[in-house]
Amino acid sequence: MTNTIFNHRSIRKYKSDPIPEEILERVMEAGSRASTTGNMQVYSMVVTKDEEIRKQLWESHFKQDMVLQAPVHITFCADFNRFNKWCRQRKAEPGYDNFLSFYTASIDALLASQNVALEAEANGLGICYLGTATYMADRIIDILNLPEGVVPVAAIVMGYPDEQPPLTDRLPMRAVVHNEIYQDYSPGDIDEIYAEREGSDLTASLLEENQKETLAQVFTDNRYKKQDNLHFSKQFLEVIRKQGFYNQ
Amino acid sequence: MTNTIFNHRSIRKYKSDPIPEEILERVMEAGSRASTTGNMQVYSMVVTKDEEIRKQLWESHFKQDMVLQAPVHITFCADFNRFNKWCRQRKAEPGYDNFLSFYTASIDALLASQNVALEAEANGLGICYLGTATYMADRIIDILNLPEGVVPVAAIVMGYPDEQPPLTDRLPMRAVVHNEIYQDYSPGDIDEIYAEREGSDLTASLLEENQKETLAQVFTDNRYKKQDNLHFSKQFLEVIRKQGFYNQ
Repeated sequence: MTNTIFNHRSIRKYKSDPIPEEILERVMEAGSRASTTGNMQVYSMVVTKDEEIRKQLWESHFKQDMVLQAPVHITFCADFNRFNKWCRQRKAEPGYDNFLSFYTASIDALLASQNVALEAEANGLGICYLGTATYMADRIIDILNLPEGVVPVAAIVMGYPDEQPPLTDRLPMRAVVHNEIYQDYSPGDIDEIYAEREGSDLTASLLEENQKETLAQVFTDNRYKKQDNLHFSKQFLEVIRKQGFYNQ
Repeated sequence: MTNTIFNHRSIRKYKSDPIPEEILERVMEAGSRASTTGNMQVYSMVVTKDEEIRKQLWESHFKQDMVLQAPVHITFCADFNRFNKWCRQRKAEPGYDNFLSFYTASIDALLASQNVALEAEANGLGICYLGTATYMADRIIDILNLPEGVVPVAAIVMGYPDEQPPLTDRLPMRAVVHNEIYQDYSPGDIDEIYAEREGSDLTASLLEENQKETLAQVFTDNRYKKQDNLHFSKQFLEVIRKQGFYNQ
């Protein structure tokens, strides 16, 4: 366990070797063992191998090379469709057309996704999460034919690694762990927490490459811009509404 | 890995034995190795051991016994507060006061939570997720002193198990896995998928106990009711707004 978790790195280059069916089955089953709210299992996992469909997904995921390379693409969805259908067939009136239910289903989907990612890695596979799943939810719904009650919330690509990147640096543990209650950060705390990252060679090359004065500007001005966030925010809320989770 | 994932069961009875500090540290570090969007690490984990504070948390988590019993309580939060403060100290203007950013931070927090849960189990500990974290987010914010930019999205209790429950039944894999694209469910599919669960002894005793005709009614009428969902839905959206994630 332990080694798998501590050895995780996102893989962005893949061999074309297919994943043996029995390994893929075990990986997906690992997803189903994650905690799920009230054992409702309000999530679905769409496993796409077909090259033509993966090409469409690649287009919606900002055309990142790895999406074409990796032989398997998995889309994790918040899914109340199956549960609602079951209720209606069993003389029960479902009341899950609201934001809380969407969020509950999101939690189910995301916990399952992390189990899938870890079990894949424990079997020698590599994975990478695609943050673009929520940005492009509307397009993914079309490609994967997701019905009402289903929203894509995460996606990963999976395959045999064709690179061995170093572990990604992380902030010191005191940055992300709070004892007893939340301890807010003083300006001195922020300086301390980010010191190592800001002083790294990686940061130096990012500043050079992006022509920026600070690493934070690389994020705010180039990578995760306010105008893009607002745009995709509106789109994602609209998707949640359209898929039937906005009864107020 | 593999065994840990496949042996997971939620633990609802705990011994009072404390968790050794070095084990807890390793468990929390496992959380920090999960994938995180753009390595922003926009989450925080609040580890509460203090009995008085845990008692307050117990009250907000619907007074479930296990919350008082388990020696450690961890609240996983979507957190842009630290990142925003860093940006402002580095001449960068953060644009993360929107729903997409909240959701991105939620994903970070939830992936970290699953790593924490699994690493705990790999070390002989038991855990249980508390679905009430989102229902009672407003109260948890008060108890843990969470500032703007921080929203609790999941909580787990952790300790040494004082019970050995059986594995929870799951729907057959074909219920939650779709090949290539989403295959919607026919009435016959729904009957098939739920047949084993509906025919179980557990279901028989739940129907008896709840005085219901179908298992689905136990969910819609007793466990996850429409009126409660709508109530907590409004409250959670209000929390997201109040914590600064609702710039449209």
